[in-house]
Amino acid sequence: MSRRTKLYEGKAKILYEGPEPGTLIQYFKDDATAFNAEKQGTINGKGVINNRISAHVFTRLSHIGIPTHFIRRLNMREQLVRQVEIIPIEVVLRNVAAGSICKRLGLEEGEPLPHTLIEYYYKDDALGDPLIAEEHIACFNWASAEEMHDISSMAIRINDFLCGLFAAIDIRLVDFKLEFGTDKDGTLLLADEISPDTCRLWDATETDEKKRVMDKDRFRQDLGDVAAGYQAVLDRILSQL
Amino acid sequence: MSRRTKLYEGKAKILYEGPEPGTLIQYFKDDATAFNAEKQGTINGKGVINNRISAHVFTRLSHIGIPTHFIRRLNMREQLVRQVEIIPIEVVLRNVAAGSICKRLGLEEGEPLPHTLIEYYYKDDALGDPLIAEEHIACFNWASAEEMHDISSMAIRINDFLCGLFAAIDIRLVDFKLEFGTDKDGTLLLADEISPDTCRLWDATETDEKKRVMDKDRFRQDLGDVAAGYQAVLDRILSQL
Repeated sequence: MSRRTKLYEGKAKILYEGPEPGTLIQYFKDDATAFNAEKQGTINGKGVINNRISAHVFTRLSHIGIPTHFIRRLNMREQLVRQVEIIPIEVVLRNVAAGSICKRLGLEEGEPLPHTLIEYYYKDDALGDPLIAEEHIACFNWASAEEMHDISSMAIRINDFLCGLFAAIDIRLVDFKLEFGTDKDGTLLLADEISPDTCRLWDATETDEKKRVMDKDRFRQDLGDVAAGYQAVLDRILSQL
Repeated sequence: MSRRTKLYEGKAKILYEGPEPGTLIQYFKDDATAFNAEKQGTINGKGVINNRISAHVFTRLSHIGIPTHFIRRLNMREQLVRQVEIIPIEVVLRNVAAGSICKRLGLEEGEPLPHTLIEYYYKDDALGDPLIAEEHIACFNWASAEEMHDISSMAIRINDFLCGLFAAIDIRLVDFKLEFGTDKDGTLLLADEISPDTCRLWDATETDEKKRVMDKDRFRQDLGDVAAGYQAVLDRILSQL
């Protein structure tokens, strides 16, 4: 365990070499960052909760035919995943206006969007993950046209499925971020994680704007009880199993 | 002349009611603004020069079948144009990295782009004309899918044609902005203007980075001799006629 090779350390996760070629171990940390790492903190127990939530969500997505990097959860903080080369694009799906888009386009927080909106951001911390369009992706060859076709089709299916999955436990899926990668055969896989770190999740049984937040906005906006928000998401998932 | 109705006053132009229904008079001012109107100034003679350059460019574009709002130049500062409802999208074509894209995507000023890049910005001064993608345009219904198809096809043709037009007079078309509108029959027309206010134009016979600039960057960057840069573009156009 102590001698295994660390391949990458991100803001919320560490990737270690896996037990077999083509596999990695994805370790979930308690560290949290926001506003392009200007705000940093620790949410005790977050890694444990996100590991379980993400494992559950990826497993369910595989059941509807979404190819993912997830193989199995190994322990409290780790999961075994397929090694992929990450496509440097964050795919954001929005059902309700919240966060950066409100100021950018003059929308009211909580306003349902006329249609689900898919956005792309260039994954580059130094540049602050700028918004991009498919034309930038093509121009700089960040992904092929075929990959973008598959990514957008999958992202829309994932959104529909997750809206249902969360609606069943009285949670509104406001928006979320996806990352994709390609394995050594060039197969496109959903990668990274899906958790309250990467989704906006609002408690549909709660109308108070601050109390309803079950995701990283509790950390971003200093709403308190961050881990409790995450735990409540997990508890509702577990209550359905 | 003094009693005619002003319909709209923008940063660089005024629109008056035209002599016949469905027409407008587009008046070119000497006022200049930059950085979302944070910087303001006057460039003596700019309106006269831009009126002539834009009239020339629109006339040539109509010869290759681009439908435009331009009817004819009336006098030093005015042109008769067809009345359109402006689509609230600024279409930017980039051949070489310059301006906002350099900081946004970490590109070197003057670096040729791998391919011509088309970008869309939402025309909203209060929001600072934010970058958008086709997905935002569809989501908020700022233009129809058919309009976007026609806009992007026309924009690419316009870029190719203008690259040639300017190359013939030793000017490099770095990037430029287009606006489109629909007339009362719903016909899509190229509108607004094409001039050193809306294009980056570099003198291809000059290697000095500051001396080569023939466009509004002379104003933005306080390079001096702003009107002389604009006049040089017009002189080269006139030398070909």
